[in-house]
Amino acid sequence: MTYCVAMRLADGLVFASDSRTNAGFDQISTFRKMHVFDKPGERELVLLSAGNLATSQSVISLLERRAGTDTTNVLNTATMFETAEIVGQTMREVIRRDNPDGKLSHVDFSCSLILGGQIKGEAPRLFNVYPEGNFIEATEETPYFQIGESKYGKPILDRIVNYRTPLDRAYQCALISFDSTMKSNLSVGMPLDVAIYRKDALKPCLMERVEEQCEYFHSLRQQWHSGIQELFSSLEPPATS
Amino acid sequence: MTYCVAMRLADGLVFASDSRTNAGFDQISTFRKMHVFDKPGERELVLLSAGNLATSQSVISLLERRAGTDTTNVLNTATMFETAEIVGQTMREVIRRDNPDGKLSHVDFSCSLILGGQIKGEAPRLFNVYPEGNFIEATEETPYFQIGESKYGKPILDRIVNYRTPLDRAYQCALISFDSTMKSNLSVGMPLDVAIYRKDALKPCLMERVEEQCEYFHSLRQQWHSGIQELFSSLEPPATS
Repeated sequence: MTYCVAMRLADGLVFASDSRTNAGFDQISTFRKMHVFDKPGERELVLLSAGNLATSQSVISLLERRAGTDTTNVLNTATMFETAEIVGQTMREVIRRDNPDGKLSHVDFSCSLILGGQIKGEAPRLFNVYPEGNFIEATEETPYFQIGESKYGKPILDRIVNYRTPLDRAYQCALISFDSTMKSNLSVGMPLDVAIYRKDALKPCLMERVEEQCEYFHSLRQQWHSGIQELFSSLEPPATS
Repeated sequence: MTYCVAMRLADGLVFASDSRTNAGFDQISTFRKMHVFDKPGERELVLLSAGNLATSQSVISLLERRAGTDTTNVLNTATMFETAEIVGQTMREVIRRDNPDGKLSHVDFSCSLILGGQIKGEAPRLFNVYPEGNFIEATEETPYFQIGESKYGKPILDRIVNYRTPLDRAYQCALISFDSTMKSNLSVGMPLDVAIYRKDALKPCLMERVEEQCEYFHSLRQQWHSGIQELFSSLEPPATS
C-alpha cells in the first residue's frame, strides 16, 4: 500500500508521500512515489502515485520520455488542466497495454495519481486523477487530496487544514497525518518525501526526504503523542462515572 | 456502513456502536447494532454487528429464539468460548440459508460480529467473530477489536487505550474515536449505543444511548477539537521554515 497527500493552499502547494511498496508481506521494497517535472521560470509539476507499481512506473517513464519530444507533453502544455488530461490518457494507455481486453480480472492494474503544480499565467492547481483517467480539481472548500491508505490520517487533516493554513503548518500537519497512519498500518513506511512549492515561485520545490532518524520528525512525533495523551487526561470526566 | 468498537480491560468491558445503516445514499435508516443477552447473577453477553443487516438481524433473531430452548444456546453455554462457537455457527447457518451454493457472488451476505461478556466462573472475555464464523480472542496485548468503518477512529485508540485503562477513560476514548470517524465518514452516524460492564458484576451493563443533543458528548467533541487545534499550534515550528 501507499499513502500520499497533497494540499493546494493560498500560499502554494504541499506534497507528501511514503516510500513503502509491498507485493505480499515478504516482498517489501522502497520506491519513491513522488516525481517532479520542472522547467524553471515556466512550470513546476509534482506527481504522486499509489496503486499498481508496474502501472505507475510505466506512466512516469512514458511521461518522462515524451517530455523531450515535439508531441504535446507535460512540459509544453498550456494549462494544468491539459497536463492532467495527458496524465489520465497515459494511464489509460498503460492499462490497455497490460490488460488489453480488460480480461485479467484477478489482477488490479489500476493506480491513482495526484498532479499538482503551476504553469506560468495560471494559479497553482491540484488534481486527483482516478484509476479511470478522469480527474477532479481541488478548490478552496476542498483543499487537499489523499490517495492510497488514506483513512487513518484523514481526521487530523479535517481538524487542522484549510485553504488559509500556512505552508509550514500544512507541512507539519502532513507529517502528523503520516505518523498516525504509520502507527496503525504496516503497509505505509518511512522514509517520507515532502515537497513544498510557494505560489508563483516557478522554480523547483523545496524537497525533503524525511528519514527514520530525522531529528525534527522524531521530536514532532514525540510532542504529538505526549500532547494527545495530556489532552486526553485533561478532559472532563464522563457524566456516567 | 457501521462502526463498532469493544475493549476488554483489567476492570471490565466497554462496547460502543453507531446506528446508521444504508443501502445506497437515499436509503438511510437507524438500526441498533448492539444486542444484549443477560441472566443476572450468571452471565452478561453483548453482541455488536456490522455488515449485511439481513444476515446480522437473522443471526440475532435465531440466537434470541433459541435462548429459551433446551438446545445448547447463548444462555446455557458453559464458557464464552462455547458461546462464540454458537454465534459463528449461527452466522454460517444464515449465510447458507440465503446463499445456499455460494453462487450469488454479486451480493455480500457477510457480517462481522464482536461478542463480549462474562459467564460465572470465568473472567470477562471478548471475541471478534469473522464473516466465516471463526473467531479470535482479545488479549492483554491487544485489548480492543473494531468492526466496520474502523480506520478513522483507530489512531486515537492506539495512542490511548491499553489493558490498564480505567473503564470511564476507555468510554471517553471510544466516544472520541466515534467523533473522528463521524467527522470523516458520512456512513457512520448518531445516535451511539454504549455499554459498560464492570468485571464480576454479572448483572446488566450500564447502557447509554448517546443522542446528537447529548450535552456531555457535545462538550467532549468541542474540548477535543479545540484541544487538538491548540496542541497543533503549540508544536515547535518545522526545521524547514
